[in-house]
Amino acid sequence: MQDKNTSPRSTEHGARSTEFVFGRRPVLEALRAGSRIFHKLWIEEGTQGTEEILKLARDRGIPIERAHRGDLNKRVGGNHQGFLAQASGTSFHDLEGFLTQLPESAPAMIVALDEIQDPQNVGAILRSAGFFGVSGAIVPRWRSAPVGETAARVSSGAIDHVPLVRVTNLAAAVLTLKEAGFEVVGTDMEGSPLEEHKPTTRTVLVFGNEGEGIRRLVRERCDKLLKITGGGPVQSLNVGAAAAIFLHHFCRSVGSQPT
Amino acid sequence: MQDKNTSPRSTEHGARSTEFVFGRRPVLEALRAGSRIFHKLWIEEGTQGTEEILKLARDRGIPIERAHRGDLNKRVGGNHQGFLAQASGTSFHDLEGFLTQLPESAPAMIVALDEIQDPQNVGAILRSAGFFGVSGAIVPRWRSAPVGETAARVSSGAIDHVPLVRVTNLAAAVLTLKEAGFEVVGTDMEGSPLEEHKPTTRTVLVFGNEGEGIRRLVRERCDKLLKITGGGPVQSLNVGAAAAIFLHHFCRSVGSQPT
Repeated sequence: MQDKNTSPRSTEHGARSTEFVFGRRPVLEALRAGSRIFHKLWIEEGTQGTEEILKLARDRGIPIERAHRGDLNKRVGGNHQGFLAQASGTSFHDLEGFLTQLPESAPAMIVALDEIQDPQNVGAILRSAGFFGVSGAIVPRWRSAPVGETAARVSSGAIDHVPLVRVTNLAAAVLTLKEAGFEVVGTDMEGSPLEEHKPTTRTVLVFGNEGEGIRRLVRERCDKLLKITGGGPVQSLNVGAAAAIFLHHFCRSVGSQPT
Repeated sequence: MQDKNTSPRSTEHGARSTEFVFGRRPVLEALRAGSRIFHKLWIEEGTQGTEEILKLARDRGIPIERAHRGDLNKRVGGNHQGFLAQASGTSFHDLEGFLTQLPESAPAMIVALDEIQDPQNVGAILRSAGFFGVSGAIVPRWRSAPVGETAARVSSGAIDHVPLVRVTNLAAAVLTLKEAGFEVVGTDMEGSPLEEHKPTTRTVLVFGNEGEGIRRLVRERCDKLLKITGGGPVQSLNVGAAAAIFLHHFCRSVGSQPT
């Protein structure tokens, strides 16, 4: 599934691309997080509950313009709830830079997405990751759903709070993370029961493709494979639901530390 | 959010409406569950991995027709993965009939949806419910997303495995369920920590609207309100993610029993 919404509207703006952020919560969370440069904010005439967004935007000197619903619809095809901003694109860290910033041997939880195809699932996992305060999320550059407007909207603004790390080779990244003292745990239907696993203080949780699971080489490099036990007539959980359960289990035990 | 896909294509067929079931897993699960009458099955020319579906359909004497992708696209607008069936509509129980079928005082877990608006969330919750083997799901007749094609697709066939109970008044249903010996637990951001709650053997889990949570009267009638503790910068979990965590917590402890 391609995130068709993204590329045609992203334009290069100096060194960094710009993109549309829209919807009340994504705009609010992006303003709160402060990790993007806002070029402009449009608010639909007559929209209620604009106070906090207006205050944050004014404090940061962002140009604000009132607009008609039709104008906003034309730009992002509905779903904007009266709020649309043009801002710098989502920013990504590289793995080495990201690891350097992490306090050495402090508790940390990282999620890694291995070829997740549906931007809905990418967004859902990032939202849960933001809720539980993970230190970062690793998103491979290729063969995964792009972290674009759909993922941003579904993440409910989490992509502006969770440091995103882009790697070209997840199997290689796993080795680097193990050297940095992380236990790498893969989620796999053939694994041992999650409930019996006692987390270490530094963990990477790897979530695989919706149909195929984690790719062979990445899977082989995991320290451990864990599964969720169901018992009902449906054979598998959605990857977003599984991620929520895994994050809950691990973050309760570890005490993660957002950077 | 309306499930626009459903109504224009559902037609009355004798006493029961018919609807389209499409996608490999939804069709497979509906055939396995055996709870619908299949009128016809179309399979796209050249589709791989048709063996199990073909066998089940032939065993049940369902008319099978090869079709071109364009014909299937016209009917359900893509997303069918080569499989489309016309079948009797999703069937619903009433609460009294459903409770009569449940073995008295046996462990049981029920989920109840209070004005969930997004059919994606309805489908996600039903899929998790099916994975953990709940006894039933209560879906109010009004002001909730319909259990239509979108929910069916996202549920990955779970709506054919989880008994669905339709009620007109959830607040009244809660009283009936309490009389039947169920502890009614509401999920609420102001509740006490889920992790400290020890489930009883008969539980109803109530999930509320994406923005507003559980409505006042239903909320007041809950025996207990519980929340998931996050700790990260994102304030709330998606209701589908929260449901997965709640179901995992409760089904581990209770040992649910599908009917």
